[in-house]
Amino acid sequence: MGQTFIEKLVSRNISAPVQAGDIVTVQVDRVMIHDIFIPFVAEKFEEMGFSKLWNPDRVVLIYDHLVPASQQDDVRHFKIGDAFAKKYGMTHVHRSDGICHQLMTEAGYVKPGDVVFGTDSHTTTYGCVGAFSSGIGYTEMASILGTGTMWIKVPETIQVNIEGTLPENVTSKDIILTLIGDLGADGATYKALEFTGSAVEEMTVASRMTMSNMAVEAGAKCALFTPDEKTAEYCQIKLTEQETSLKGDGDAVYYKTINYRAEDFVPVMACPSQVDHIKPVAQLAGIQIDQVFIGSCTNGRLEDLEAAAKILEGKTISPFVKLIVTPASRKVFMEATRAGILETLAAAGAIITHPGCGLCCGRTGGILSDGERVVATNNRNFLGRMGTSKVEIYLASPISAALAALHGEITSPPQG
Amino acid sequence: MGQTFIEKLVSRNISAPVQAGDIVTVQVDRVMIHDIFIPFVAEKFEEMGFSKLWNPDRVVLIYDHLVPASQQDDVRHFKIGDAFAKKYGMTHVHRSDGICHQLMTEAGYVKPGDVVFGTDSHTTTYGCVGAFSSGIGYTEMASILGTGTMWIKVPETIQVNIEGTLPENVTSKDIILTLIGDLGADGATYKALEFTGSAVEEMTVASRMTMSNMAVEAGAKCALFTPDEKTAEYCQIKLTEQETSLKGDGDAVYYKTINYRAEDFVPVMACPSQVDHIKPVAQLAGIQIDQVFIGSCTNGRLEDLEAAAKILEGKTISPFVKLIVTPASRKVFMEATRAGILETLAAAGAIITHPGCGLCCGRTGGILSDGERVVATNNRNFLGRMGTSKVEIYLASPISAALAALHGEITSPPQG
Repeated sequence: MGQTFIEKLVSRNISAPVQAGDIVTVQVDRVMIHDIFIPFVAEKFEEMGFSKLWNPDRVVLIYDHLVPASQQDDVRHFKIGDAFAKKYGMTHVHRSDGICHQLMTEAGYVKPGDVVFGTDSHTTTYGCVGAFSSGIGYTEMASILGTGTMWIKVPETIQVNIEGTLPENVTSKDIILTLIGDLGADGATYKALEFTGSAVEEMTVASRMTMSNMAVEAGAKCALFTPDEKTAEYCQIKLTEQETSLKGDGDAVYYKTINYRAEDFVPVMACPSQVDHIKPVAQLAGIQIDQVFIGSCTNGRLEDLEAAAKILEGKTISPFVKLIVTPASRKVFMEATRAGILETLAAAGAIITHPGCGLCCGRTGGILSDGERVVATNNRNFLGRMGTSKVEIYLASPISAALAALHGEITSPPQG
Repeated sequence: MGQTFIEKLVSRNISAPVQAGDIVTVQVDRVMIHDIFIPFVAEKFEEMGFSKLWNPDRVVLIYDHLVPASQQDDVRHFKIGDAFAKKYGMTHVHRSDGICHQLMTEAGYVKPGDVVFGTDSHTTTYGCVGAFSSGIGYTEMASILGTGTMWIKVPETIQVNIEGTLPENVTSKDIILTLIGDLGADGATYKALEFTGSAVEEMTVASRMTMSNMAVEAGAKCALFTPDEKTAEYCQIKLTEQETSLKGDGDAVYYKTINYRAEDFVPVMACPSQVDHIKPVAQLAGIQIDQVFIGSCTNGRLEDLEAAAKILEGKTISPFVKLIVTPASRKVFMEATRAGILETLAAAGAIITHPGCGLCCGRTGGILSDGERVVATNNRNFLGRMGTSKVEIYLASPISAALAALHGEITSPPQG
C-alpha cells in the first residue's frame, strides 16, 4: 500500500513502516527553544533529573520575542538561557538574529526529512523544506532534551492540490488564508497538510514558508512541501533521492483531498477576530485603518518587503497611518538594506524596526488602543493580540498591507 | 559696553539693549511640543481660554518618545495631538520622523538668532546653530501658544574657550562630559554657555549639537555657538551679517571664562549614576558590560553611527553584549542605509531600531535589569533611567561605546 508524505517520513525515521494512527517514538533531529519558554524548559529539565543534553549540537536557543527587552523581567529569560546554554555546552544560541522560525531554516538547522520540534506553535513552518516539525510544550521539550526522542501519533493527511498560475497580486498568503477559511480554525486538527500541484511547485521556498507557518491556524500538526531544486538551493544542499522521494504515493490513503484552481484565488483578509473569518479584500475596500504591520515569521522575508517596496516606491503613506516594518531576520534586514528596500520603505514613511517578533506578539513596538484598526501580515488576529480587546486586526498579504498603508484604508489590489 | 552672545541675541529680539539679569518679554520664533507633553499642553491651553494659536506655522508637534507605541495609553497622546493639530490648523506634525531635537534643526525649523522653546529639557540643543533655545513646562508652553511671547531673565554667561586640535578618538562628547564634570551638575544653573575657540570652529554642527544638547546637564539655560559657514551649510541658508555677528564682544562681561587646551582632553565617561561623575575611560578599562546603546539626540547622528561602524567593520561584537543602535531621525536612518553603515553595524551584531528616543527614555527597546551595566551615548545616567535602579549606566562617546560592544568590557580608545 502506498504512503503519504508524513507516513513515509516517519517510517524512515524509525526504520519501520507506519501508517496514520500508529503511535510511535521518533528520533528527533533538531529542537528549537525560544526566549519565552527557556525558563520553564530549563526548570523542568533539571526537575526530571537529567544531567546532560542528549546532543547539544541538536539544540537551538533563539531570543526573538523579547529582543530587545521591553520589560525588566525579560532580562531574566536571557540570563537563564545563557546560563543553561553554558552549563550544558550548547553553542547554537541566537541572541538578536531574528525570528526563531526564520532562523531555523535560513541558518540551515533544518533539512528535508528531518523531525523537528519547537516550543512555539508556528514550528509547523519547517514543512516548507519538507521536514516534519511541530510545536510542543515545555514539559515535552525538557523530555526531548534528555532523551532525544518523542512519541507521536502519525497524523492522517489532508492533501491540498493547487494547479495553475496565481493571478497578479495574489500570493501564498491569500492561498493559506483561503484554505483556513474553507477548513475552519479546527478543520485540520492533528492532520498533516500535504501541498501539491503546479502552483506550489512554482512557489519560492519563502512563499511556501508562509503557508506551512499558518497551517497550524487550521489546527494542522504539520504542513509539508516536497523538496525540490528550490529547496536544495535554499538549504544549500544537494538533494538525495530519498529526499526528493518525500511525497505522497499515487495510492496513498488521504483523509481528504482538496483541489484548487490557482486562477480562482483572489486577495483575501482574515477579519476580526478569527483566523478563519475570511473575506475578499474587494469586499472590505474603504475600511479606514490606523496602522499597518509588515513582518513576522509569516511574511517578514525579503520577497515580502520587496513587494511592499514596489507599491510604495516614490510614494508617501497616508499621514495618519503608522506603517511598521519588521524584517524577519538580521540576514533579511541586511539584504533589504543592500537592495535599497529599507530606504524605499523609510522614504515612504515606514518605521523600520529591528528583526524579531516585534508587534506580532503584542508586547511593544506599535501597541494599539480601543477602536483602532490594523492590517497586519502575521498569523493571528485574536482579541487583544496587539493591544486592547477593542482593536480590530485584519490579516493580509504584504501587497494588501502596503496598499492599505498607502491609502489609509483597505484597498483592493489591482487584478490584471 | 560690550555684550555677550545671549545679551546681543535678546537685544535684537526685543529691539532694545539688555544685559544679564534683566527681565524681559521675548518674541518667540518657534516652539516644539513632543508627544509626552501634548495632552497637558492641550488641556492647559484651553483652560487658559485661548481659542487660537498665535501662529500655527511657528508650532511644531513631534511624536518621538512614544513611537511606536509600547503601551496602550501611548495612543491617547497621538489622538490628542492629532485632534489639537487639526482643531488649531497646525501643519508641522511629525508622527514617526525621529527625535524632536534632531528634527528641529535638521528640518530647518530653527535658524541662527531665533528664540525657541520646547517641552523637553534638552531643547538647549538648538544653540548649535546659534539660537537661544530652552526647555519649559507645559503651562508656559500653553501660554506661548496663545501669546507668542515669554518672559525670561537674561542669563549671565560662562564662556568656554577651547583652542587647538582634539587628539585622536576624542570627540565633542568627551569635551562636554569633561566640562560637566568640571562645572558640576549645577555648576551652570541658569547660565548661558558660550563656546569659542579654534577647536569649536573646527567642529561639525553635529558635534556642536552634542555639546549644546548636554549643556543642560550642568544646569545651563542655553549653550551657544556662533553661526559660521558650517551653520549656513547645515541650515541651507546664506548667513546675514547680523547672524555672523552673534558672538560675545571683546569687552563683554562674563560670569566666568574657562579655557581648555584641546590637546588635554582624553576619552571620558560619566559613571553611575551622576552626569558629573566623570572619569577617564583608561581608568575604567576592563569593567564588564551587558549592553551598549548608540543613539539619542546627543549622539545618534550620521557621524556618530559612522564612527561606530568604522570600529566594528568586519568584526563581531562580544557574544553576550546587546548593541542597540538607534538613528536620530528618518533622514539619518536613510543616509546611514545608503552609506552602508547600517549594514556594517548589523553585520557586526547590532540591533538597529527605528529612529526615535528609543532606550534613552527607558520605556522599551532594551530595558535592563538588576546588576546589568550599559555603556550609552545619550545624556543621562540617572538611577532607573533604563530599567531598575540597580542598573549601572556609563555615558560615553560613540567611539568608546562601540569599543565596549566589541570587547564586552569598557576599553580605552587608542590614543595616537
